[in-house]
Amino acid sequence: MRNLQRKHERLNGGGSDGKGGKSQPELCVMATGGGAYKFYDKIRDALGGVDVLREDEMECLIIGLDFFITEIPREVFTYSEDNPMHFVEPSDNVYPYLLVNIGSGVSFLKVSGPREYQRVGGTSLGGGTLWGLLSLLTGARTFDEMLELASEGDNSKVDMLVGDIYGTDYGKIGLKSTTIASSFGKVFRKKRQAENEAEDSGGLHKDHHQPESPGISTPVNEEDFDPEQHDLPHDPSRPFSSADISRSLLYAISNNIGQIAYLQSQIHELSHIYFGGSFIRGHPQTMNTLSYAIKFWSKGAKQAYFLRHEGYLGAVGAFLKRQPQNWGRRGSFEEAALENRMRARTRSIAVAEILEGGNEKEYETAVV
Amino acid sequence: MRNLQRKHERLNGGGSDGKGGKSQPELCVMATGGGAYKFYDKIRDALGGVDVLREDEMECLIIGLDFFITEIPREVFTYSEDNPMHFVEPSDNVYPYLLVNIGSGVSFLKVSGPREYQRVGGTSLGGGTLWGLLSLLTGARTFDEMLELASEGDNSKVDMLVGDIYGTDYGKIGLKSTTIASSFGKVFRKKRQAENEAEDSGGLHKDHHQPESPGISTPVNEEDFDPEQHDLPHDPSRPFSSADISRSLLYAISNNIGQIAYLQSQIHELSHIYFGGSFIRGHPQTMNTLSYAIKFWSKGAKQAYFLRHEGYLGAVGAFLKRQPQNWGRRGSFEEAALENRMRARTRSIAVAEILEGGNEKEYETAVV
Repeated sequence: MRNLQRKHERLNGGGSDGKGGKSQPELCVMATGGGAYKFYDKIRDALGGVDVLREDEMECLIIGLDFFITEIPREVFTYSEDNPMHFVEPSDNVYPYLLVNIGSGVSFLKVSGPREYQRVGGTSLGGGTLWGLLSLLTGARTFDEMLELASEGDNSKVDMLVGDIYGTDYGKIGLKSTTIASSFGKVFRKKRQAENEAEDSGGLHKDHHQPESPGISTPVNEEDFDPEQHDLPHDPSRPFSSADISRSLLYAISNNIGQIAYLQSQIHELSHIYFGGSFIRGHPQTMNTLSYAIKFWSKGAKQAYFLRHEGYLGAVGAFLKRQPQNWGRRGSFEEAALENRMRARTRSIAVAEILEGGNEKEYETAVV
Repeated sequence: MRNLQRKHERLNGGGSDGKGGKSQPELCVMATGGGAYKFYDKIRDALGGVDVLREDEMECLIIGLDFFITEIPREVFTYSEDNPMHFVEPSDNVYPYLLVNIGSGVSFLKVSGPREYQRVGGTSLGGGTLWGLLSLLTGARTFDEMLELASEGDNSKVDMLVGDIYGTDYGKIGLKSTTIASSFGKVFRKKRQAENEAEDSGGLHKDHHQPESPGISTPVNEEDFDPEQHDLPHDPSRPFSSADISRSLLYAISNNIGQIAYLQSQIHELSHIYFGGSFIRGHPQTMNTLSYAIKFWSKGAKQAYFLRHEGYLGAVGAFLKRQPQNWGRRGSFEEAALENRMRARTRSIAVAEILEGGNEKEYETAVV
């Protein structure tokens, strides 16, 4: 920040004391997100002498997204397993659309035009839920470790599939045998069974290196027989693998967000659904699940769109709020805009999207 | 079952060998639910000699619900904290309506008329998810223990509220400071902090009876200060209470079902939303959360309806499938119906709704 201040002084040929004359553009920090309000005093104190301007989170989000989808090539893409990054050309003709912003929680925003939006819904089942539950259930200590685990897991070890219930498809209502009927639906019974077995054997943990021990993988009796139970590890206190749990929860959260997004898009008649926020992180399974959910529920009529800079919508939006309106790539070919850009270049603006507590990216600062 | 067989023989004056003559009504078991298909052979073998008739799960559900809401007084009720059981009179004029059936997973059914329905959606986040996750996260071994824990917990210890992010309401988009922004949103950060502290102190657990020890309730540094962290217990390996976790997850699952129910009711233009299935169990917090969600999202325009016999819709529906059409309470005043009822009375039918594995109520048999 001190370097930035010096550079700013050199470029603008004058001191910036935080209360300086209006003729000189002042160095300032644009801040958005919940933390911009909650930690305002601390930020201002820490950056002594630099103005901290707070901007509304949702407004910045929309301004940032508008900029990315209307101006930046190779930014918006659709995901499929065959073609993980199929780019969509930027276009002015994108309204109205639905923005699903996934951070710790999830917001659904209907965007009707540039800077024109309405928060139509939200769910508390978001990134924070995945991080929180997985930090309790697995040994993972970072979100990336959790995603790594998820990519190795098999959710059918913990989820109850339609086939587990019916032994087959439930064709009459269009459910395939592989459809997840209940996330974590196998856990309760398997765990109880494991505990009962542990009690039956005197509560002792089985020796992990004793392959001939029947352990907990032997069904209690014929009625409870389930071939999948042979896959259980031998420690009754941890009968489920971290990888399987991670994959199940990632699917559950992503599917749920995808479903609500589809329902909101139906109610508000929106055909384009964009996903942003720090949850996705370019993680293939997350994007695949969100894409699949939108396709499944819309019977192929709608698509999920992702952004390469998904985690920076708010920060870029806050930056743009201090820029002349015509600033941007397309505007750059117009003379007036060019002039504005030259002027803008002489001003350095630091932008911070300050996220709520608990997020790894807290205090991450994007200097644009 | 043997007693039932004997009684049946006595009343009908003839043997029932499972293949008996058609002039005699035969003793049979009506079975529905996924288990009726998956465990069909086992059930038939176990009940040797008695016919097992499988009926479609969704169809039985609807027939049962139709019967309850159109025929049975003091059955359907709305829930509010002031008036936990406000009964609604049975009526013929109930169509179309939405049925939300919450078992291990959740089904949303649009019912347009008697026996006329369509499954419009579902979510895998249901009872099985709550039971599964809570059996991993808490010491509870039955669902009722989990509900008991939830009733004692404080979800704000683990959930991130709007007020935790903004320090206040986010009035611009209509969010109160007490709104849950992220379920389990506080866990990740608090847990990491607890682990870091444990490592800093040489990995030793703090002595629980040493009040002067700063323990993990002292913030690492000023920036991380959060008054709520003073509530953390002193064992870094279990910084969250089972009660708080249970309440948070119960809220998360119930809220989510309530929200999707509301969205489905909007899309399909349904003003009445009935909740059934074995998840609710007359538990006040569950009903309160579902009711609140419907009121919140519909801005007071819609209401959640509950049933006293919520867990028996399918079983009663299966029973009714074998009954003359006019059977029922209202029909009972008509002469023809009375005659039918008399005939029906001489026939004993055992009804079982056989639920998928993992559910405590498996093999529970309702002999009507």
